[in-house]
Amino acid sequence: MNNYGESNGDSNVHEKQVEGHDHCENGDGSDNRVILGIDGGTTSTVCVCIPLFSSSKSLPNPTPILGRAVSGCSNHNSVGEIFPSHVKLYVQNDAVAALASGTMGKLHGCVLIAGTGCISYGFAEDGREARASGAGPVLGDWGSGYGIAAKALTAVIRAHDGRGPQTMLTNKILKALSLSSPDELIGWTYADPSWARIAALVPEVVSCAEACDQVATKILVDAVQDLALSVKAVVQRLHLCGEDGNGSFPVVMVGGVLEANRTWDIGKEVMKCIQEQFPGAHPIRPQVEPAVGAALLAWNFLMKESTGNSHS
Amino acid sequence: MNNYGESNGDSNVHEKQVEGHDHCENGDGSDNRVILGIDGGTTSTVCVCIPLFSSSKSLPNPTPILGRAVSGCSNHNSVGEIFPSHVKLYVQNDAVAALASGTMGKLHGCVLIAGTGCISYGFAEDGREARASGAGPVLGDWGSGYGIAAKALTAVIRAHDGRGPQTMLTNKILKALSLSSPDELIGWTYADPSWARIAALVPEVVSCAEACDQVATKILVDAVQDLALSVKAVVQRLHLCGEDGNGSFPVVMVGGVLEANRTWDIGKEVMKCIQEQFPGAHPIRPQVEPAVGAALLAWNFLMKESTGNSHS
Repeated sequence: MNNYGESNGDSNVHEKQVEGHDHCENGDGSDNRVILGIDGGTTSTVCVCIPLFSSSKSLPNPTPILGRAVSGCSNHNSVGEIFPSHVKLYVQNDAVAALASGTMGKLHGCVLIAGTGCISYGFAEDGREARASGAGPVLGDWGSGYGIAAKALTAVIRAHDGRGPQTMLTNKILKALSLSSPDELIGWTYADPSWARIAALVPEVVSCAEACDQVATKILVDAVQDLALSVKAVVQRLHLCGEDGNGSFPVVMVGGVLEANRTWDIGKEVMKCIQEQFPGAHPIRPQVEPAVGAALLAWNFLMKESTGNSHS
Repeated sequence: MNNYGESNGDSNVHEKQVEGHDHCENGDGSDNRVILGIDGGTTSTVCVCIPLFSSSKSLPNPTPILGRAVSGCSNHNSVGEIFPSHVKLYVQNDAVAALASGTMGKLHGCVLIAGTGCISYGFAEDGREARASGAGPVLGDWGSGYGIAAKALTAVIRAHDGRGPQTMLTNKILKALSLSSPDELIGWTYADPSWARIAALVPEVVSCAEACDQVATKILVDAVQDLALSVKAVVQRLHLCGEDGNGSFPVVMVGGVLEANRTWDIGKEVMKCIQEQFPGAHPIRPQVEPAVGAALLAWNFLMKESTGNSHS
């Protein structure tokens, strides 16, 4: 299996494949062949199996899941490639599978992922692609969970050494980390450079913003601007909004930062900000997991291939 | 030898010691005893030897250096303690030795170090201490060399993916790193997390600002504000500026970012910004290296001790 480059701070693998079983039509338009959608990473791997509806124009909704399995690492550097040669294999960036999980396999529109890292990735109808952000913390992904939490930690240090205003973040974060002084944050950040460990503080920042702390609120408002800007940059480069700027296109919203479901709803604010410039942007929160997105993507690839073959 | 905590991103050791030779007065007020000033770190260690002027009120200027030696690591975890028990040993944060290198051993005023990292450290006449910044890159030392260069790299990525304005930084930095596209910066930053490697790009940012690039100029202006704010926070907490805010105090300026000596002079701008609020702040650029500062500091400690003894 292949390990794809960086996107949102996590290297994932998405593979869609078709087992070459006998072609035997069932009553529902499927045959005995299947598609496996795989969301694979260094920590864990999710695999779902859906039937191959080869004669359908569109998939049934909800997508029928024949089976689902979770296992460990699928980094090909660790475990090697394990598929027999007759399996058709498609490998894509995890942002592409995330987009497909919201658009039921169609590659059109933009996906915004904001978890530990963040990335915006889009496809135009003609197949052109563009991305923004997703370059990692050194290169300024400030709307990511890591970015938000690092700014909050910085605000605590600044309040402590006299450079910034006092903030509720100090007590909230020290309590969450069982530390007794902001000075101890320096050792805490040096002890373990894991971005996910820092990003885990986002709920504390949201709590403080909900309690009207001005420092926390500014951090979230800036993150909203940053995340919206990533989507806007992709939309503009791909002209997803059409000639008049009012064209309709989906924005698939994925990741813990956008799924907060709190009073201070980062995802909702990001969409508001995008729609001020592009009123045709409509948000989609995926109803299926990325592995299903990968399977739907594979189904779409196969349909295109078979259409191409029947025309030739 | 002791390894002191973090200050400007580099852990250094400063030790001042007096060899217990026979006390035998020379014509110049010194005797045969000496002070060793040591600026020790993980990579290299500088040691200077000055005579102990036990009967003088002040040291001769320039300080007579009897000897100077450079060697490798002096991290006590690696090489252990090597001094005989009769040697008096003082260990201080490297920011303290840097302050002493500008004030000829007197601990009063504020030092601002801006190299790969940055820190502001101050002492009041009554011995109170305060610091600001110096918490590392995760915790927002944006005026440091690392901070300036990381912002410049971010600006290149943002110009490339459509989130930010075009900037001269793109060509300048890609050329300096022998890369052909901004996309390659992602791999470049992931390849080696060393802060010093990123901070080495500061001269490229200064060049672009000197050529009136607006993005580079804004990065430097923000860094100036950040560095000045670190000093101001220390000055305010220690009341270095006196009751009326106009009191005189030294600001010792150390580190590559402040010693640029370019048309766009970061250090000069930082001082201007400090003096707008505290007109009594006067800049000192040390004429001696930190190891000499450490020796001068040791001399001052000894004079205080002997004065204390003669009064008791």
